[in-house]
Amino acid sequence: MAHQGSSYLDSLLNLESVRKSLVRQEDSIIFSLIERAKYPINSALYEDDDDKISKDDPPAHSSASLFHFFIRESEALQAKAGRYTSPEENAFFPDNLPSPLLPPPDHTPVLHSPGASININEKILNLYLKTLLPLIAADGDNGNYAATAASDLNCLQTLSRRIHFGKFVAEVKFRDAPEDYTPAIRAKDREALMKLLTFESVEEMIKKRVEKKAMIFGQDVDLKENDSNSNYKVDPSIVSKLYGEWVIPLTKSVQVEYLLRRLD
Amino acid sequence: MAHQGSSYLDSLLNLESVRKSLVRQEDSIIFSLIERAKYPINSALYEDDDDKISKDDPPAHSSASLFHFFIRESEALQAKAGRYTSPEENAFFPDNLPSPLLPPPDHTPVLHSPGASININEKILNLYLKTLLPLIAADGDNGNYAATAASDLNCLQTLSRRIHFGKFVAEVKFRDAPEDYTPAIRAKDREALMKLLTFESVEEMIKKRVEKKAMIFGQDVDLKENDSNSNYKVDPSIVSKLYGEWVIPLTKSVQVEYLLRRLD
Repeated sequence: MAHQGSSYLDSLLNLESVRKSLVRQEDSIIFSLIERAKYPINSALYEDDDDKISKDDPPAHSSASLFHFFIRESEALQAKAGRYTSPEENAFFPDNLPSPLLPPPDHTPVLHSPGASININEKILNLYLKTLLPLIAADGDNGNYAATAASDLNCLQTLSRRIHFGKFVAEVKFRDAPEDYTPAIRAKDREALMKLLTFESVEEMIKKRVEKKAMIFGQDVDLKENDSNSNYKVDPSIVSKLYGEWVIPLTKSVQVEYLLRRLD
Repeated sequence: MAHQGSSYLDSLLNLESVRKSLVRQEDSIIFSLIERAKYPINSALYEDDDDKISKDDPPAHSSASLFHFFIRESEALQAKAGRYTSPEENAFFPDNLPSPLLPPPDHTPVLHSPGASININEKILNLYLKTLLPLIAADGDNGNYAATAASDLNCLQTLSRRIHFGKFVAEVKFRDAPEDYTPAIRAKDREALMKLLTFESVEEMIKKRVEKKAMIFGQDVDLKENDSNSNYKVDPSIVSKLYGEWVIPLTKSVQVEYLLRRLD
């Protein structure tokens, strides 16, 4: 049971399948944002107010907001189900996660170990709560905090997976041409590495594609022949901006940090 | 904090907004199925085999499959976050759910209480595992059990919400014209009620619409002008069949059962 398909792991070291996965992950990210946009902002979910929590209930929600409680406990449960044995997954609250119930998969590590543990989820969480959420969720409170938090978790996990996928991109690129990266790695030259990893025309294409996907997936579909409504569930320009300002730069910064440790 | 917006609750008793919600829920269901189809069937997740679970770990996973453990524990966590205080939500494992951490919302019940507790999730779970899943997931095992189970939970919850929405449909229809339903309710005439609730042309339209949505949301989007690919992530005819054979009939059966208790 517990061995991961080796073809699946091989696919993480093949540039073509890594790219395919990144394109497929765009759909997941956009679906998750559209789903979050169903609910209003529901600010009370994110407020740190212990006094509102029933005092009878013992430890669980010991501090912070219902949102933090929910994300932390969800990650603990998913850890038991083995989520973080996958090199694709990084927890938002990685401290004190319980062990998996099943023995972890027994496979050759795909990533070079010093960089495998890079985790920039704290930054992703901050960006999500402070910048992205107010752009996609309407004002208001409908009281559906559990469904809203579950939806937040899905957004965070799809974004985190995409951004940390930079590790596989960097590993594949390094293996393909170690001589291209080695001098800059030895010189600890972040700027030179960033330059080697930047392809502006590709980035522009990605931004256009995710904008188009947001239009297609976020439209109101009916049975009329010519759909020309422009009532999108998430503003497509926000998705393009999300990629241009955060997803792509953060993925590259994961790549740079990974490469800097690649010769350790 | 803990009061649900009354405009939100009012919307559950307005036929136009109930219909809008049902249409919007189609998108959620299709997104969830497309996301589940990313993973292979991963059968080991669903196997009842205790001996594979590490013996050090105490109680949690006391019996059944990792899937059952994950769904049950996820529901317990969501119950703490207040999910089941919403009349829209029904648990798959409703026994012994923990209380919400926050005081439940204080509002006038929307549904007539004898029918409010109708829960056909056992049937939905069986259909999902035995019939739907093998139709949408490819053969194979990639070891990503936690992500797969989280994705299953999302499919189950979107389907369950849609099907149990029959309660609101029935309540609204009954309030609009109690005289139409009362004789059949008093006679406990399921067949007559089913007839009153069946509009074949509307059902055909829904099946066509969800098939179209599955084509639109499940296509591979690229930047070429004329997309004419037919490589859908979930077969659109399966989505149409899902609605025609299960979602619509089960929603109507919830409506019938609800109406039968409407005069109690």
